[in-house]
Amino acid sequence: MNKKPTLFTSLSPALLHLFDLTDSIVVIIDVFRATSTIATALYNGAARVIPVSGVDECKKLGNELAGCITAGEREGKVIEGLQYGNSPAEYPREFIQGKTLVLTTTNGTRLLHMALEKGCSEVITGSFPNLSAVCDYLMNQEKNIILGCSAWKDKVNLEDTLFAGAVINRVKEHFTIHDDSSLMAEEMYMLHKDNLSELIQHTTHWHRLAAYGLHKDLHYCISIDVANVLPVYKNGNLVIG
Amino acid sequence: MNKKPTLFTSLSPALLHLFDLTDSIVVIIDVFRATSTIATALYNGAARVIPVSGVDECKKLGNELAGCITAGEREGKVIEGLQYGNSPAEYPREFIQGKTLVLTTTNGTRLLHMALEKGCSEVITGSFPNLSAVCDYLMNQEKNIILGCSAWKDKVNLEDTLFAGAVINRVKEHFTIHDDSSLMAEEMYMLHKDNLSELIQHTTHWHRLAAYGLHKDLHYCISIDVANVLPVYKNGNLVIG
Repeated sequence: MNKKPTLFTSLSPALLHLFDLTDSIVVIIDVFRATSTIATALYNGAARVIPVSGVDECKKLGNELAGCITAGEREGKVIEGLQYGNSPAEYPREFIQGKTLVLTTTNGTRLLHMALEKGCSEVITGSFPNLSAVCDYLMNQEKNIILGCSAWKDKVNLEDTLFAGAVINRVKEHFTIHDDSSLMAEEMYMLHKDNLSELIQHTTHWHRLAAYGLHKDLHYCISIDVANVLPVYKNGNLVIG
Repeated sequence: MNKKPTLFTSLSPALLHLFDLTDSIVVIIDVFRATSTIATALYNGAARVIPVSGVDECKKLGNELAGCITAGEREGKVIEGLQYGNSPAEYPREFIQGKTLVLTTTNGTRLLHMALEKGCSEVITGSFPNLSAVCDYLMNQEKNIILGCSAWKDKVNLEDTLFAGAVINRVKEHFTIHDDSSLMAEEMYMLHKDNLSELIQHTTHWHRLAAYGLHKDLHYCISIDVANVLPVYKNGNLVIG
């Protein structure tokens, strides 16, 4: 029997340094809403998504690139000087097809760059809208996996943990998992998989975004396989893998 | 109605900086095994427990203080040059009564000093052997609470999370809790409160300590109220509060 690759869950960017990322695939998870938006934009035909850490870099690329949309949020709101926000509903096919989306967000794009800096071999992004694409890919790679939750300003959150649990529940037979965070993530998912819509109303993020009337967005972000493509990071761009 | 104080759960020392410790009580949680051992030693009549971060400091105090036991572990094992380890079973009444225990451990004593450095107003220690004493105290203080899990070298662990959940389950009516970590901790505890003995055999810590034949220790550490005193940190000492 071949030795199975390992799988670990990092519940917060502030814990990512505890894991050996060498030769590993890191799955960036930012359910509310960056990685849901990334999957949706690509599913709806975006040529690519460029994740950038800073607002200035976002604006600069917006000026340089043709056919480009600048978008992002801080504290859940559209940033002044950028064109769009971090809502998947802003990127239907008739709008985004063929375009480049330059995106900066509070947590998800920051974690993606942390993972790259720490020398992982590959970055993909995941959320409920592309759960199957993520799981199918991971099961076929025979590589070590880090499920990287973006959290909220480093505070552990429920929705990213639940998505990690959903992935673990599907792929676990293919990996060696000795990790209490993974155990908790899967158990939380199994406990709530049939009432996710109700559960998310208890998250801190729900209360934060509810103030902006984004309930519909949040329900979309926990809808399984509604934008089932695999965003893979290549040469600075997230493209369909 | 008076405004209730807040309660947050820090799942790892690497997350403690995210919380405002000012005017807060921090509960240091290191179920396997520091805070179980601290409760047990005090319950069995130890005059005080002095938690120290470093091995050298432990040895130095051992030389200076009369009637003093030096103890500690790194990687779950007794440290060379110290007299005893981090097992509650090493501290029965006939041995520890009236003595001072100077203790250094991998995770728990380190977190305690972190909390003090970050300016919390009070430190107490908790584990299943003194669950009721901790909860009764917290409900009567009307102060903000941080439940500080010691984790394992900053990696989130199940047993400390479960104890946080047990506390939350008992005290929650007295606090405002908007914190996904607390929500998860309580749900994990409720899911497993009737099978803790079986569950801990799935923790990473069980596999780590099983190699040293410490199963009996671990079962003791999840036994509720078997050493039901409240260790409070005062002037460098943990004493019964």
